[in-house]
Amino acid sequence: MVAAKATRRTRSRRPRAAGAPSPWGHASVGVDLGGTKILLGVVDARGAVLDTERLPTRAERPASAIVDDIVGCVRDRWADRLPARAPLGVGVAGQVDADGTVLFGPNLNWHDVPLGRRLARSLRRPVAVMNDVQAATFGEWRHGAGVGANDLVCVFVGTGVGGGIVVDGRLCHGASGTAGELGHLTVARDGRKCRCPNSGCLEAYAGGWAIAERAREAIGQHPEAGRRLVAIAGETGAVTAETVAEAYRSDDPLAQELVEETMGYLVCGLVSVVNAVNPSTIVLGGGVMEGFSSLVPSLGRQVKARALPAASVRLEVVPARLGGDSGMVGAATYARTAGRGVP
Amino acid sequence: MVAAKATRRTRSRRPRAAGAPSPWGHASVGVDLGGTKILLGVVDARGAVLDTERLPTRAERPASAIVDDIVGCVRDRWADRLPARAPLGVGVAGQVDADGTVLFGPNLNWHDVPLGRRLARSLRRPVAVMNDVQAATFGEWRHGAGVGANDLVCVFVGTGVGGGIVVDGRLCHGASGTAGELGHLTVARDGRKCRCPNSGCLEAYAGGWAIAERAREAIGQHPEAGRRLVAIAGETGAVTAETVAEAYRSDDPLAQELVEETMGYLVCGLVSVVNAVNPSTIVLGGGVMEGFSSLVPSLGRQVKARALPAASVRLEVVPARLGGDSGMVGAATYARTAGRGVP
Repeated sequence: MVAAKATRRTRSRRPRAAGAPSPWGHASVGVDLGGTKILLGVVDARGAVLDTERLPTRAERPASAIVDDIVGCVRDRWADRLPARAPLGVGVAGQVDADGTVLFGPNLNWHDVPLGRRLARSLRRPVAVMNDVQAATFGEWRHGAGVGANDLVCVFVGTGVGGGIVVDGRLCHGASGTAGELGHLTVARDGRKCRCPNSGCLEAYAGGWAIAERAREAIGQHPEAGRRLVAIAGETGAVTAETVAEAYRSDDPLAQELVEETMGYLVCGLVSVVNAVNPSTIVLGGGVMEGFSSLVPSLGRQVKARALPAASVRLEVVPARLGGDSGMVGAATYARTAGRGVP
Repeated sequence: MVAAKATRRTRSRRPRAAGAPSPWGHASVGVDLGGTKILLGVVDARGAVLDTERLPTRAERPASAIVDDIVGCVRDRWADRLPARAPLGVGVAGQVDADGTVLFGPNLNWHDVPLGRRLARSLRRPVAVMNDVQAATFGEWRHGAGVGANDLVCVFVGTGVGGGIVVDGRLCHGASGTAGELGHLTVARDGRKCRCPNSGCLEAYAGGWAIAERAREAIGQHPEAGRRLVAIAGETGAVTAETVAEAYRSDDPLAQELVEETMGYLVCGLVSVVNAVNPSTIVLGGGVMEGFSSLVPSLGRQVKARALPAASVRLEVVPARLGGDSGMVGAATYARTAGRGVP
């Protein structure tokens, strides 16, 4: 699971022609609820973000305090401009059941929190609750880089690696709501230990935490080659995936080796996805991926060269477009359209 | 792509109570069209096979001769008992488009053969054409080991490794009709060369051809340890996956090592599938898998131990039930129900 990097951004509102209907008339509210911050926004029917608010999660608080924050923001900031029955969608970092209960949210330390029911009761609006990465996938599909695709895969590479799958015009939830955990495709039998129960997962090579870990190991083995990385970070223990990205951009050979290896594993994972579900479009996003966005075309070529020709003949691999807004936009749109692919 | 091992089998017909409607009244015809044989059958609404015919494909003939064989069998054997509009479904070893044209059938050496249109014109019946492994998946889902599952994955391990995916009650075809190529999940970056453009594919370890290849290599490296395998096959070059299965059953240590390694790679592939699409049920079939059916429970335990807990908490891994009939039963049922999950 990866929390997409969020940046507060209130999009400029275009001047409206006299007599044109307000975009607020068909808007819905989207919430991206992560372990460190809550991003809330009003999203219109075309996916434009009309207003946003960003709050700290302070996950050590009880769930009710977090629910109160969301309810308070919607009531105090937007209730007077939103239609009374404008729906609210929440993407939450965790496992969500079909009733909108968060079965398990590791970053929030939540177990069996009936988030959908509580929000609906307080706000008296329709509420949809979904996994945050599935929400981000829905956002990129409906209003981002995946518009028009009927079979789509999103892969978000951040601290962790997560994803979402759209099959034949419908978002895939899976039997227990966890579909799309593409960071846990096995790319190397008996490979590096992952943070999940397995080893050799894509995330154990390409997640931000793993890139940092691999970089620190490489510095330990080749201190001379690692000088640039250490100089950027201050000390070996402070080297992160961002350090590697910065050194990579300045042509540091060790960083280049690390990035090439990372991309090699990413190709393995994407080839698996192409052969298994045969999407027309792969959207690549997430904070770490944004640092390497120049590599997306090369990744696409490598995936097409290695995947089954019939499965990849019309495949496009493209960068995400919504950045940190994808989860919020996706949750709002999902709630407004009841998850339908075509509005 | 794997051609499921077929055995001719005409199921015994239960005596019908006087006045009960004939099962032929709601039957459809299923055809499993492979590179060496054509299996045809009449399948009733409950998935029972009422009659079958098996013909050699003789793939060196023009496509029209193969179409004539199918048309002839349906007309001569079954037309008098089938309803006039009883549909026909064909599962074909190859890539099929939504119009029923076989874009590419490597074992038949077919390119752009409008199979659906030709059969419909000759038989004056509704015709559905689909990929053979997707047909087998549909068969196991609707009338085999996957009945009742809403999210299902079938993996068929034969000479090759293929599969099919059902997402939220619908068979997944993919953007170009090739979804379910689970033999080409990458399980080992830079691993063994596959027969596809890639290396490190599941099939390059677990497909029948790969098991044979690995066994012959092991014999070359350890001739002493390989004596039992050579004794069974006659010579090293004649060792097949079946040889390995036979030696495994007689507790030969080299065969056991080969099989354990094979199952290890299969676990990697299945864990990837569970984390990516979160099925409630995995059905394992195919000729090679049938030789190791005693290992299915252990495979299931290993997959559950390594997959994400939330993704595998309710997962069941079960052996296929329809054997070599799955493609024929699936194609017939798909045609009769227009691919609907619930009739």
